[in-house]
Amino acid sequence: MAQNIYDRPDFLEGYSRLPRSVEGLDGANEWPAMRALLPELRGSRVLDLGCGFGWFCRWAHLQGAASVRGIDVSARMLARAVAESPAEVTYQQADLETVELPVAAYDLAYSSLALHYVEDVGRLFRQIHLALAPGGSFVFSTEHPIFMAPSKPGWVTDPDGRTTWPLDRYLVEGIRKTHWFVDGVVKHHRVIGTTFTRLVQAGFTVTALQEFAPRPEQIAARPELAVEVERPMFLLMRARR
Amino acid sequence: MAQNIYDRPDFLEGYSRLPRSVEGLDGANEWPAMRALLPELRGSRVLDLGCGFGWFCRWAHLQGAASVRGIDVSARMLARAVAESPAEVTYQQADLETVELPVAAYDLAYSSLALHYVEDVGRLFRQIHLALAPGGSFVFSTEHPIFMAPSKPGWVTDPDGRTTWPLDRYLVEGIRKTHWFVDGVVKHHRVIGTTFTRLVQAGFTVTALQEFAPRPEQIAARPELAVEVERPMFLLMRARR
Repeated sequence: MAQNIYDRPDFLEGYSRLPRSVEGLDGANEWPAMRALLPELRGSRVLDLGCGFGWFCRWAHLQGAASVRGIDVSARMLARAVAESPAEVTYQQADLETVELPVAAYDLAYSSLALHYVEDVGRLFRQIHLALAPGGSFVFSTEHPIFMAPSKPGWVTDPDGRTTWPLDRYLVEGIRKTHWFVDGVVKHHRVIGTTFTRLVQAGFTVTALQEFAPRPEQIAARPELAVEVERPMFLLMRARR
Repeated sequence: MAQNIYDRPDFLEGYSRLPRSVEGLDGANEWPAMRALLPELRGSRVLDLGCGFGWFCRWAHLQGAASVRGIDVSARMLARAVAESPAEVTYQQADLETVELPVAAYDLAYSSLALHYVEDVGRLFRQIHLALAPGGSFVFSTEHPIFMAPSKPGWVTDPDGRTTWPLDRYLVEGIRKTHWFVDGVVKHHRVIGTTFTRLVQAGFTVTALQEFAPRPEQIAARPELAVEVERPMFLLMRARR
């Protein structure tokens, strides 16, 4: 079972104050890049894995999706998602390590920043491949392995005044425990090559791979983002069944 | 025109002492992983871009390739490749920035650690796509962008005794000038996402993506390789026309 940190009140209290929790999709710097990877949603059946507060589910509904289903492990996040969504958007509590999905039931599977909590992505990718109709799309973001790998993730100023991200353990995959609002948040570090290989092994064709960089206008609006060009925070991918 | 550092005697003198220059393919730690990505070569038409001393060309000939052609910018390296190869293996001096390839003339395009010298890989990928027969393969290695990105590439020992690779400028693509045997070696830094996107834009389907890590038996034989798991040195990819 994946760690369900989002149901810890002390974690959720901090998480709920993030721009993306307050402003929704527009509070996520990578959202314009993610949206550009999406197919036309009108009339399509949409599945959101790790839907959290349901922001994407509601947006997909507004785009004219024929049906939208969100899945998350956190009862507290789902409670808010249900309360804030129209009745046509449905939700299910499930662990992405063990979730069983209906066969050929969706045209788009979407997942935002959830897969790095999943240890066995090979199993999950096979489930998603089965759950998509032929020609269906799987679009996801995950923490970039450069962001996740270090034994001590964080910025360092070197003697020359450069800001660097001291990378180590990049090729050593497995659990990373970090502090994010609370101690002991468990993530599963995988290199890009492994994520790619698991997708191909599940039967997917990978059609897009992007390492997110904030855009110049985003940095102009929020100068604290300038440092984000030193190392990538997010990996975005699209695959086709 | 790409920098032709390999024709500088002082550079070539150092390069010629590398294990891969002395021992050939078996002196390259990533060779077993590259070989595993290759299709059956018997009867196939093979092109090697950045062939250097011609080690791969000779190996492909021994595997029963119907024809083998090596291309490199360095007259000095080609002179040795010609001298040490059978007459059936042919060579051509050309710059990968401007090379013109025959259409649908090859079943395999191969390139080992040459693409990071090329600024316009989009042009080169389109040339290679045209040069391959339908169903043909493009297998290549390049320096990993984590290895290439830093403004000061090198290991640092932090106060805890950890060996780290201080990463910066990862998302800032463009020229990197480094010292490798001589000062001023020019490489072109691209993130993995850009290499992937240029392949897709050229018409390829990417079928393999690996970030090379030395295998445990390689580290056992050469303990100085142990540090190489802290950050990747090589990116290996395979694409299909």
